[in-house]
Amino acid sequence: MPNRYAYLGPAGTFTEAALHELHPGMPEGTSVACTGVDAVFAAVRNGDVDAGVVPLENSVEGGVTTTITELVNGAPLLISAEAAIPVRFTLAAREGSAIADVKRIATHPHALAQVRGWISAHLPEAETFAVSSTAAAAQAVAEPAAPYDAAVCAAIAAERYGLRPLADDIGDCSEAATRFVQVSRPGALPAPTGADRTSLVAFIADDHPGALVELLNQFALRGVNLTRLESRPTGDGLGRYCFCIDADGHVADAAVGEALMGLRRVCRDIRFLGSYPRADEGSGPAQIVPAKGTSNADFHDAERWLERIRTGCAD
Amino acid sequence: MPNRYAYLGPAGTFTEAALHELHPGMPEGTSVACTGVDAVFAAVRNGDVDAGVVPLENSVEGGVTTTITELVNGAPLLISAEAAIPVRFTLAAREGSAIADVKRIATHPHALAQVRGWISAHLPEAETFAVSSTAAAAQAVAEPAAPYDAAVCAAIAAERYGLRPLADDIGDCSEAATRFVQVSRPGALPAPTGADRTSLVAFIADDHPGALVELLNQFALRGVNLTRLESRPTGDGLGRYCFCIDADGHVADAAVGEALMGLRRVCRDIRFLGSYPRADEGSGPAQIVPAKGTSNADFHDAERWLERIRTGCAD
Amino acid sequence: MPNRYAYLGPAGTFTEAALHELHPGMPEGTSVACTGVDAVFAAVRNGDVDAGVVPLENSVEGGVTTTITELVNGAPLLISAEAAIPVRFTLAAREGSAIADVKRIATHPHALAQVRGWISAHLPEAETFAVSSTAAAAQAVAEPAAPYDAAVCAAIAAERYGLRPLADDIGDCSEAATRFVQVSRPGALPAPTGADRTSLVAFIADDHPGALVELLNQFALRGVNLTRLESRPTGDGLGRYCFCIDADGHVADAAVGEALMGLRRVCRDIRFLGSYPRADEGSGPAQIVPAKGTSNADFHDAERWLERIRTGCAD
Amino acid sequence: MPNRYAYLGPAGTFTEAALHELHPGMPEGTSVACTGVDAVFAAVRNGDVDAGVVPLENSVEGGVTTTITELVNGAPLLISAEAAIPVRFTLAAREGSAIADVKRIATHPHALAQVRGWISAHLPEAETFAVSSTAAAAQAVAEPAAPYDAAVCAAIAAERYGLRPLADDIGDCSEAATRFVQVSRPGALPAPTGADRTSLVAFIADDHPGALVELLNQFALRGVNLTRLESRPTGDGLGRYCFCIDADGHVADAAVGEALMGLRRVCRDIRFLGSYPRADEGSGPAQIVPAKGTSNADFHDAERWLERIRTGCAD
Repeated sequence: MPNRYAYLGPAGTFTEAALHELHPGMPEGTSVACTGVDAVFAAVRNGDVDAGVVPLENSVEGGVTTTITELVNGAPLLISAEAAIPVRFTLAAREGSAIADVKRIATHPHALAQVRGWISAHLPEAETFAVSSTAAAAQAVAEPAAPYDAAVCAAIAAERYGLRPLADDIGDCSEAATRFVQVSRPGALPAPTGADRTSLVAFIADDHPGALVELLNQFALRGVNLTRLESRPTGDGLGRYCFCIDADGHVADAAVGEALMGLRRVCRDIRFLGSYPRADEGSGPAQIVPAKGTSNADFHDAERWLERIRTGCAD
Repeated sequence: MPNRYAYLGPAGTFTEAALHELHPGMPEGTSVACTGVDAVFAAVRNGDVDAGVVPLENSVEGGVTTTITELVNGAPLLISAEAAIPVRFTLAAREGSAIADVKRIATHPHALAQVRGWISAHLPEAETFAVSSTAAAAQAVAEPAAPYDAAVCAAIAAERYGLRPLADDIGDCSEAATRFVQVSRPGALPAPTGADRTSLVAFIADDHPGALVELLNQFALRGVNLTRLESRPTGDGLGRYCFCIDADGHVADAAVGEALMGLRRVCRDIRFLGSYPRADEGSGPAQIVPAKGTSNADFHDAERWLERIRTGCAD
Repeated sequence: MPNRYAYLGPAGTFTEAALHELHPGMPEGTSVACTGVDAVFAAVRNGDVDAGVVPLENSVEGGVTTTITELVNGAPLLISAEAAIPVRFTLAAREGSAIADVKRIATHPHALAQVRGWISAHLPEAETFAVSSTAAAAQAVAEPAAPYDAAVCAAIAAERYGLRPLADDIGDCSEAATRFVQVSRPGALPAPTGADRTSLVAFIADDHPGALVELLNQFALRGVNLTRLESRPTGDGLGRYCFCIDADGHVADAAVGEALMGLRRVCRDIRFLGSYPRADEGSGPAQIVPAKGTSNADFHDAERWLERIRTGCAD
Repeated sequence: MPNRYAYLGPAGTFTEAALHELHPGMPEGTSVACTGVDAVFAAVRNGDVDAGVVPLENSVEGGVTTTITELVNGAPLLISAEAAIPVRFTLAAREGSAIADVKRIATHPHALAQVRGWISAHLPEAETFAVSSTAAAAQAVAEPAAPYDAAVCAAIAAERYGLRPLADDIGDCSEAATRFVQVSRPGALPAPTGADRTSLVAFIADDHPGALVELLNQFALRGVNLTRLESRPTGDGLGRYCFCIDADGHVADAAVGEALMGLRRVCRDIRFLGSYPRADEGSGPAQIVPAKGTSNADFHDAERWLERIRTGCAD
């Protein structure tokens, strides 16, 4: 039986595009559109699906804060894959419409903020309406008696709802990309590929100046590069923060493993969020070249050396 | 002539509540509701208003990403004040309605996510509709021929649009607070109060493991405590990050000043975003007690000592 | 057959006192006085003796630089024990002499520097003569036709050469102590006692500002306290240094072991010089209490945690 | 009136050679040989001389520990110059002697340790005698009724006492150099030259793992390179250490000045020991190239930037 996947719906969101990027050619009927990030997490946790796809760093569909809250505070799940999807907006309408017919445009508020320049230039008279997602906008436009003439949405949404693209790539900033993650119940990790990422949440023990430096030194000293670092209130008192961290490398790597053990020892708490292949935009991830003295071979050499000196051999 | 302020509208948003928190008793006609965060920034930049209020860390009205993008990438403005507003949702309807009458509820998607528990429990049959802000929901409900029966919004929105609260404080997480900032054109900074915050953006020179540690050491070594740290892609290439940083203290303080000079020397670029009185939730900010050796007096003692030894005095 | 020990002689040096401190009640004929630190090292290396005792931090008998050079650059030996001996000088003469008879005093130049105050006060007319050790001074005074009337030496030297103490504890600074080490050929290390010391030499890879900080961070991050740190030119080029380091703890301890592996990875070279029970002056060494998160138990907990997360368990 | 200088005598020590290196062509009668390092310091302190020259890092004439103790604990003096003198030993005898005549050799014990190889090879039958300095050995040999046939000493000692060199450069390690410093009463510092050294003693406030790292970070963060670092017991309790530090640069340099202010703030005490031109062996010191962001210009740029942002200018 094929795997089943939940995603932040409705059909046609950028999240659905990410799901197809991660599982090209997935069979019909194996994906489930959920109406909120929390619903995706719930479907994974209760076993309705094998995994779920949600936005993690995303200015378009909303939901990022919810994703992080679920990962940090909810029952533990692991990130098992990621996808980086370019944010490209399409103006889509029912068959037979032309740009000149567009008077009322529906989209998500964040998407609206990103196409305002194009709309001012090309449809200065049009009214805009906020709906709950770009896909919902497309869905609404597709209704025969729709109160809107066009939607600003992903190309996949136009396709899903049988709309015709009137203009492509209408975002004011054409290089934006959004990062999506696939979450799964705890279980075997994806094997290391040489270009992986590890995510975790660190709750520091106190708040003195330098506590964060000590934490980051656990990575720096083992040559582990960080790619994302974000403080978040823990919610259990004013000024208490945890740190959401993405690092290069796989927890199976010696350097990452030792850094995580260091965090485990000095932090109030650590939540491991998974190790998974890194998705970079464009031409695919390059292998990560470890800094001097931080390769697996360097760690193993040091372990063997330590064994020798512990037994009193001359080194 | 009184100062004029722009804010993220429409009337009745949590942002308007923050504006009133910052300027209690402001005269009628001195505030301007804008339809987007970018419009607030534009109004400040072009001189239409003296200052503008926008959300900075906020899961309710959206706009946070836009605020940070404007602060980081737009023409320079300074943060001149901040406000922390508890996020309390009200279910509001037209006069004469009762809870039992509520079939269709309008609100912003983020607000909806935060009241889902209450709605499931009390109005399990109600339909929900996404609009562009909680205030827009209240405004829509206030229309005589409104397609909605009630709005989930701030208390101030119910008041603004003549609605009647049916239920107060219906959020699933009652301790949430949102942080708003007031932005102004460059000019004299607010005077130090002893409980201040300094905001800035640091663009690190490169991406080696440890670059961030070096940056944070500039603060730690001078005993300056960080209260927010968030990495953001700079947008000018894969994997290049800048760091949005909030620190305790005022740039006029010796420790903060020296830390910022250190950043200036080691970073590719620094954008100073202002020093302003800290707004903490609840009973007001405590004075910050500097760590050993990091008070203004300690710095001045060290300066005098350096002068003495530079002239060859025995110390 | 009992163990045999070499020491920096002749009989009666503070080094011999240290040897007896380390091996109380050793049988007659099991110790060998050598005429130089290098001779002690040679006797250990070529198997003439089982171990040798030499001064390591000592202003009295000379030899410290030689000891360190032998440890750093010679064929590898390990420190297997240490002793801290209070430096107490005795003025000793042949039977029948009185203080008033003392006109010519022999001693080592360093000892002379430390008793100058006493001699000025009590024997202002006496001439002083430099010999190669305080014990050699006692030996010379003991000769029937000695050209000297008295020696400044250790109490043990007076005893060895049949001299009579005229005045005890005549040093100007009565709290001085000297540290001696016992060196052995590589082999099984002394077992951990809970109050141990580990010695090593680190050759840093380059000389950039901060290289030493990185090295010391390897200790600090694992909570390992340093008790001695001394830079020494490596001799293979101007401005190249190595660092002689003493640290609290035993290489069998998890924290010390991981710190040493870290050094092994980042340094050009590391020479391990041994782990052995710490000798503190006075009432014996207290057990070392590890800093938070750095006990063996903390490390083992972290290892088990890492194993769990590597297999994908929820933590 | 020319300046007068004390030095560690007698005439003919390597210290006298250092004095002449520092003041080539100094007039007759302007130097005073003292019989101990403490006597040199006393002569400077009480104004008998303008400055004094003593060994600082030296295995030959002894005195290093005394020099450091005087600098650290005595009434404050400043280092005003340094000299690096190659340690080259000469075997010197009275006119008319040949190597074959040498049966009894006098020298300082440390020198003896360094020429043992040569003596074993060339004069295996000779007896050796310890005297208080290499110069004292030469002086003794020069006496008509000398009990010694030859001295191992500096070339300058042979010259001073009218001896004839029988063999030059007989040390077993031909690349050794010794560092001497000139100490003066507090007063105007030598002007910066671009290749200077700064010496100081830091007494750390406590002994936690990491205290030393914090101290060294004060240098590393400003790009100040350390060239010597040596822990020393402070003498006021077991396990309390101070650190003798030599750093590249002049206290008048911005980076060094700020680092020293940082130490002043975090340490229990700092004793400044002077800034003076660096003496490197061989072809003279190269100008020091500051690390990125740490030149005087970088510091001044940062100061001007800080002034601008403190007044609220857009940067």
